[in-house]
Amino acid sequence: MSQLLTDVVEELSKLPGIGRRTALRLAMHLLRMEPSIVAGMTRSIDRFRREIRYCRECNNLSDTDVCPICEDPKRDRSTICVVEQVADVLSIEHTQQYRGLYHVLGGVISPMQGIAPSDLKIDLLVERIRRGGVGEVILAISTSVEGETTLFYLMNRLREFPDLKITSIARGIGFGDELEYVDELTLTHALLNRRAVE
Amino acid sequence: MSQLLTDVVEELSKLPGIGRRTALRLAMHLLRMEPSIVAGMTRSIDRFRREIRYCRECNNLSDTDVCPICEDPKRDRSTICVVEQVADVLSIEHTQQYRGLYHVLGGVISPMQGIAPSDLKIDLLVERIRRGGVGEVILAISTSVEGETTLFYLMNRLREFPDLKITSIARGIGFGDELEYVDELTLTHALLNRRAVE
Repeated sequence: MSQLLTDVVEELSKLPGIGRRTALRLAMHLLRMEPSIVAGMTRSIDRFRREIRYCRECNNLSDTDVCPICEDPKRDRSTICVVEQVADVLSIEHTQQYRGLYHVLGGVISPMQGIAPSDLKIDLLVERIRRGGVGEVILAISTSVEGETTLFYLMNRLREFPDLKITSIARGIGFGDELEYVDELTLTHALLNRRAVE
Repeated sequence: MSQLLTDVVEELSKLPGIGRRTALRLAMHLLRMEPSIVAGMTRSIDRFRREIRYCRECNNLSDTDVCPICEDPKRDRSTICVVEQVADVLSIEHTQQYRGLYHVLGGVISPMQGIAPSDLKIDLLVERIRRGGVGEVILAISTSVEGETTLFYLMNRLREFPDLKITSIARGIGFGDELEYVDELTLTHALLNRRAVE
């Protein structure tokens, strides 16, 4: 069997969700791509892995020491949206509804997975708020057990700022959700927090 | 947003079955991998794309002009198993039940997708058989409409060799298949071609 093929299948199988069969399919696709396109792809992967860093302000991925969002003078510096991971920043930016800053925790507290508060960028957040100028912190954390634990922990940590407004993104039924399939907890919450139709 | 991240997500999205969300997840996984492991992966992809070639005998992927299977003196050179694609060679080799040679067509005849017989390595197969020494050709082609068309075309082309034994892999119910879910055509074929229990 071809060693080059064996090697590339083994290497691609190191990626999450890619078994040997998918890796083989990917390898066959690489053969149909222009060599220059493949070279561009691998160059981009190498550069990303070598040069990407974390913003020292908000812990978001960045090409520079401080990320473009933190440096943007047009963003509202008095609001910080706290999220679990980089992908969440992308999702929120995609809505084009948020003009404040972010803070990426880098995960949620999970005793099961051995993730303690000290493993997350919580101290960095507290330091940012201590420097002043922050009026509101929006907690945009998932509603998992770990998420709720993290939310609770953050609320406690942020008690040292009595004037800070702490909010959480709204929980409820998503657009397009069918009531029949919504879980009980979400439905209960949505009922108790019903709003007047304007 | 980080340009390095944007770039790598865009590049990874060029792979089949990988959308932007999956690409982002892969990028995040790359960050957790050792840089040397990532460099090994991209090096292997580059080498594969640049150096892999097709065996000039059987059209299988190969690191050399003639692939290791065609060069192996222990393989039975009188039998050629004709398959659609490289992945099929790997599947058959995996069974460890076949000791002959292969011939990779590189696809199946498909007027819908504009794939004519001349786009496949059929002439190469005929030339191989003309050189002599081949006693049996096993057609291991899928049972799709395109596969059957290709099978029929091959049978016609191989008529020029009256002494050549042409076989096709057995069709029937797979091990683990439940009768309830087997399609009608397969079930009909399996019934008509029933075998005495020994």
